[in-house]
Amino acid sequence: MRLSRAFLPTLKETPAEAQIASHRLMLRAGLVRQTSAGIYAWLPLGLRALRRIEQIVREEQDRAGAQEMLMPTIQPAELWRESGRYDDYGKEMLRIRDRHDREMLYGPTNEEMVTDIFKAYARSYRDLPRILYHIQWKFRDEVRPRFGVMRGREFLMKDAYSFDLDKEGAIRSYRAMMLAYMRTFQRMGLKAVPMAAETGPIGGDLSHEFIILAETGESAVFYDAGFETLDWEHSDYDYDDPEDLARFAALLTSMYAATDEKHDPAAWEKVPTERRREGRGIEVGHIFYFGTKYSAAMGLALAGPDGRPVAPEMGSYGIGVSRLVGAIIEANHDEAGIKWPDPVAPWPAAILNLKRGDAACDALCERLYAALGGEAVYDDRDERAGVKFADADLMGFPWQAIVGPRGAASGRVELKRRATGERQEVSLEDAVAKIRG
Amino acid sequence: MRLSRAFLPTLKETPAEAQIASHRLMLRAGLVRQTSAGIYAWLPLGLRALRRIEQIVREEQDRAGAQEMLMPTIQPAELWRESGRYDDYGKEMLRIRDRHDREMLYGPTNEEMVTDIFKAYARSYRDLPRILYHIQWKFRDEVRPRFGVMRGREFLMKDAYSFDLDKEGAIRSYRAMMLAYMRTFQRMGLKAVPMAAETGPIGGDLSHEFIILAETGESAVFYDAGFETLDWEHSDYDYDDPEDLARFAALLTSMYAATDEKHDPAAWEKVPTERRREGRGIEVGHIFYFGTKYSAAMGLALAGPDGRPVAPEMGSYGIGVSRLVGAIIEANHDEAGIKWPDPVAPWPAAILNLKRGDAACDALCERLYAALGGEAVYDDRDERAGVKFADADLMGFPWQAIVGPRGAASGRVELKRRATGERQEVSLEDAVAKIRG
Repeated sequence: MRLSRAFLPTLKETPAEAQIASHRLMLRAGLVRQTSAGIYAWLPLGLRALRRIEQIVREEQDRAGAQEMLMPTIQPAELWRESGRYDDYGKEMLRIRDRHDREMLYGPTNEEMVTDIFKAYARSYRDLPRILYHIQWKFRDEVRPRFGVMRGREFLMKDAYSFDLDKEGAIRSYRAMMLAYMRTFQRMGLKAVPMAAETGPIGGDLSHEFIILAETGESAVFYDAGFETLDWEHSDYDYDDPEDLARFAALLTSMYAATDEKHDPAAWEKVPTERRREGRGIEVGHIFYFGTKYSAAMGLALAGPDGRPVAPEMGSYGIGVSRLVGAIIEANHDEAGIKWPDPVAPWPAAILNLKRGDAACDALCERLYAALGGEAVYDDRDERAGVKFADADLMGFPWQAIVGPRGAASGRVELKRRATGERQEVSLEDAVAKIRG
Repeated sequence: MRLSRAFLPTLKETPAEAQIASHRLMLRAGLVRQTSAGIYAWLPLGLRALRRIEQIVREEQDRAGAQEMLMPTIQPAELWRESGRYDDYGKEMLRIRDRHDREMLYGPTNEEMVTDIFKAYARSYRDLPRILYHIQWKFRDEVRPRFGVMRGREFLMKDAYSFDLDKEGAIRSYRAMMLAYMRTFQRMGLKAVPMAAETGPIGGDLSHEFIILAETGESAVFYDAGFETLDWEHSDYDYDDPEDLARFAALLTSMYAATDEKHDPAAWEKVPTERRREGRGIEVGHIFYFGTKYSAAMGLALAGPDGRPVAPEMGSYGIGVSRLVGAIIEANHDEAGIKWPDPVAPWPAAILNLKRGDAACDALCERLYAALGGEAVYDDRDERAGVKFADADLMGFPWQAIVGPRGAASGRVELKRRATGERQEVSLEDAVAKIRG
């Protein structure tokens, strides 16, 4: 993408309304623009990061055996009357009447709808187990939206739903999602801690939140220091082996970790003092086992192995995909801007032409841009070097390939690693190799 | 995807409400399920087709120099008051009040919002030209939704918006989108005809609809037979060359083609009788040039080359992405089911194991499935061969790899091409090569 033709705007001023770093940087770097309170348009730079994060979430759901579908944003009120949640949900639910005065709503979650869809097709225990998921925009009419995409009203969520024959199967699905979640966050360079949590309006009796530790987090958290040094390899666990899944769940749940809502002072006392950590965190995922709450209420019953009808045991599993953009920035930034981890960077590199119009600079930049297959941001604007440095730091591409007249004359590129500030002078070929990783 | 574990349900009965082939087949093959009138959930099979279609649309927008962003579904009413369309739009607009009683709406289109966003960042003529697009769910509260996803209420649309310094530039952008559209539909195996069209609520004085000829189409159309044999190569036209774009536009607009709303009997009389074609068609795209209608109304003015403010000339360009799934099926089906064109097929092949439990059949199927990298539907269900044949025909995978005991004993696969019914006995290696294309 040539910056001279791109729609990649940055702001010089820090918007007054932004209280936390990720919100400030997302506005300044041109990732998003607020269009109403708590509702954002994703500009090209932000959308690319969002899509990369979404793709990692998708790949790990698929790997765990979940199957992607897509439910609509607008749901009929009747479904929520069946489960009894229509009246319970309160003002966070965006309620709508269509032209025929039918009661509709903008989905905040999809337990009812997925149960209704599954019921339409599944016939017997042979249709179990299944995990279905979708990645779709949701709406929760927060009374006070804040922190940018971290607590917006229209947000992108991955929500999965498991259907199993019995509790044992449901716990296996729950553990498979635990593994998929830990791997998802690990791939994004995030250290997530699963914490015992309240089930809230979803219901059920088993629930974990996945928390990224960050000073600006909304939740107070208590955890064992062992999580800080927890070391595990995804390849050591097989989704098809229940014992592997049990072993992984045990690894994660053997140490104390809880949000303040579930904090248990008696259990906390048993954690050795030197291992007790208190802090704040950002919730990026939440999983629930709730048994037959929805299947029973909505009449989902399948023929069991003995022919008698059985209500599937269910769970649901959410990841805040758009919120993750903010969480990743909270964990990866400095005063100058964003420092994207490679796996989620909108582009891997920016090419900075320090002297546009200089034949050697122009030629080397064009060669580098072509060698990267156009998969870089080429700053070919008629701007001062200082502006280009500042924008590249702000937008946070993992690599900056800096081309000035002196280096260009001898075919050399100065390659800067945004995360560390490390610089080295390299040939074009080496620059391409390093950027391509 | 192993069918024994997949959520790929099919229906034996033809749903009574489906009046046209695509609607009937989308329900029977398990592509979608209606969740409210005119609102559909996309099941895994349908979602995969939708995503492939979406990706072709995206690639051709990118190739034409358009830049992807993503605007939210919920918009503030004030924006539409600025343009004057809030009251004009009527009951098709889904109007919403949030918990603070603010007037919102579910976006049916985005001229106002994109103009407002562009205005926030663009400063001068150097920020022109730009084409921005997004692929997002829209809502139009149709009084009588019908024909499945062809006239649904919640639908996926690609909408692009061009900003140019002057009319000449705007016409160039308009022509670039004409080329991108024709290439988009061509890649999907569709023959689209651009027809002069009414501008309707978008406004402006130049507009074309892109129509796929189909008996079940909602629009009556009149066109020159020359469109049936029109031959053109995308590679003959360069998006950066205004003369190429003018030449392409001339090719498309030199022959008569109009929907009944714009039909001109006087011009029609000049078409030689033997070249006059009347029929019906499905609108899959619509492009508009409307000058400064929105930029002027919403105060978008940039510093021109002479320093004086100028309102950019704009156009907008829509493709009905979810509707295309229906249109492609209308053009590619028979009594038995869908016949997916290769570029948009959810999976390239189904592997039909005719005798599950037979060691040779099971082994050959597993080898073939592995050789295709899991990128096939493997029908490993405990079902009769007839059920497997019928489901594969219904779901419409371009290839069927049929494995029975006789062939399996000698390592042979019967490969059936769904589109033509042609069958051949081949080795596993040849089957993989043909399926991979």
